[in-house]
Amino acid sequence: MSMSIYKRIDSLNITLPPLSAPVAAFVPYVRSGNLLYLSGHIAKTDGKPWVGKLGRELTTEQGKSAARAVAIDLLGTLHGALGDLEQVKRIVKLMVLVNSDPSFTEQHLVANGASEFLVEIFGHKGKHARAAFGVSQVPFGCCVEIDLVAEIQ
Amino acid sequence: MSMSIYKRIDSLNITLPPLSAPVAAFVPYVRSGNLLYLSGHIAKTDGKPWVGKLGRELTTEQGKSAARAVAIDLLGTLHGALGDLEQVKRIVKLMVLVNSDPSFTEQHLVANGASEFLVEIFGHKGKHARAAFGVSQVPFGCCVEIDLVAEIQ
Amino acid sequence: MSMSIYKRIDSLNITLPPLSAPVAAFVPYVRSGNLLYLSGHIAKTDGKPWVGKLGRELTTEQGKSAARAVAIDLLGTLHGALGDLEQVKRIVKLMVLVNSDPSFTEQHLVANGASEFLVEIFGHKGKHARAAFGVSQVPFGCCVEIDLVAEIQ
Repeated sequence: MSMSIYKRIDSLNITLPPLSAPVAAFVPYVRSGNLLYLSGHIAKTDGKPWVGKLGRELTTEQGKSAARAVAIDLLGTLHGALGDLEQVKRIVKLMVLVNSDPSFTEQHLVANGASEFLVEIFGHKGKHARAAFGVSQVPFGCCVEIDLVAEIQ
Repeated sequence: MSMSIYKRIDSLNITLPPLSAPVAAFVPYVRSGNLLYLSGHIAKTDGKPWVGKLGRELTTEQGKSAARAVAIDLLGTLHGALGDLEQVKRIVKLMVLVNSDPSFTEQHLVANGASEFLVEIFGHKGKHARAAFGVSQVPFGCCVEIDLVAEIQ
Repeated sequence: MSMSIYKRIDSLNITLPPLSAPVAAFVPYVRSGNLLYLSGHIAKTDGKPWVGKLGRELTTEQGKSAARAVAIDLLGTLHGALGDLEQVKRIVKLMVLVNSDPSFTEQHLVANGASEFLVEIFGHKGKHARAAFGVSQVPFGCCVEIDLVAEIQ
């Protein structure tokens, strides 16, 4: 089983990003007891902010791709924090923030890009509680931001 | 005491909804240790999305009613998850998202619809920490979305 | 070490506010196990709501000052809850809500006002996970709202 998560990642042609250096007075994750709290990760494409508002510059399908990209970065942070992704007992909670025009109402479909990816990687351990909603902006103008709580073995 | 929560629910003429089937890769709740994390629940009326923005289509009083309706659905999920609402040791935290016109500033009054209901049902165990704020949209255009963390016996 | 946190607070000419009385059916904090969940605290100046939207009435620098002011109030609540701030083992997580015009994209810089202050007070124990984003409104029209999770000794 220890191999399988990384094999699944490989089979999807995904390279996990390294742990990002904290850019300010906060850190990418904090562990408290058996819970690992990950900071909000913003959508990037080619290492740069993936900018735009859903319902204006970006389609739901593009937003879903961005949410998947954020989930890959969250996975990279989990790997960096734990050394071994098999240490993840459960993905507990996702908060999915979608940079939304006031008329855009498909935040749940955008969020599925992250949710479905986590289940693809972790199986039933990847099934999480979730809140997804539209926000008026995200740092750097990114289209999606996600934070995550995981339970550790 | 085990009777009293359900008696209180009955006395308010409330029928708890059944656990909703997960509509995507996420689930209505996840338990981790003694904490139960509930997914964001969106406001419904007659089983359909309760649509509208506060400060535009809906009044504060209507938003408060919607928040109470969401709290009833959260109660249904707690009951479905635990089998017995007496298992709730404490309602720990609510995040109340109010679909808000940029000029609407009474999110706290809307949120009271949920907060007051939980205290009505659980007494002092229902007193929770809370964050309430305005969002630019909610899935399906719903007026209110709430997620919840509860501590279990 | 027990002296040093309060000495640091004194040296910054900061007077901690008393615990605010709950204004509704919710409370300023809830403890569950080793975690302390603080309610969303809104920005105040001279005891009144610090009103305005970033990217419209307020500059990033003003928002950063407001975030620092909220962090001082959070510190007051931590002190009121624990009696002794040395009981704080770790600041685990901050959610920083910035009342934002849809064009404002510097929520991370605003949030640094709170993050940097907490590290100034708590040292490495103050380094936290964080999500910062723009919301369409905050209760009373305040410019910043922050909630916090802390781990206790």
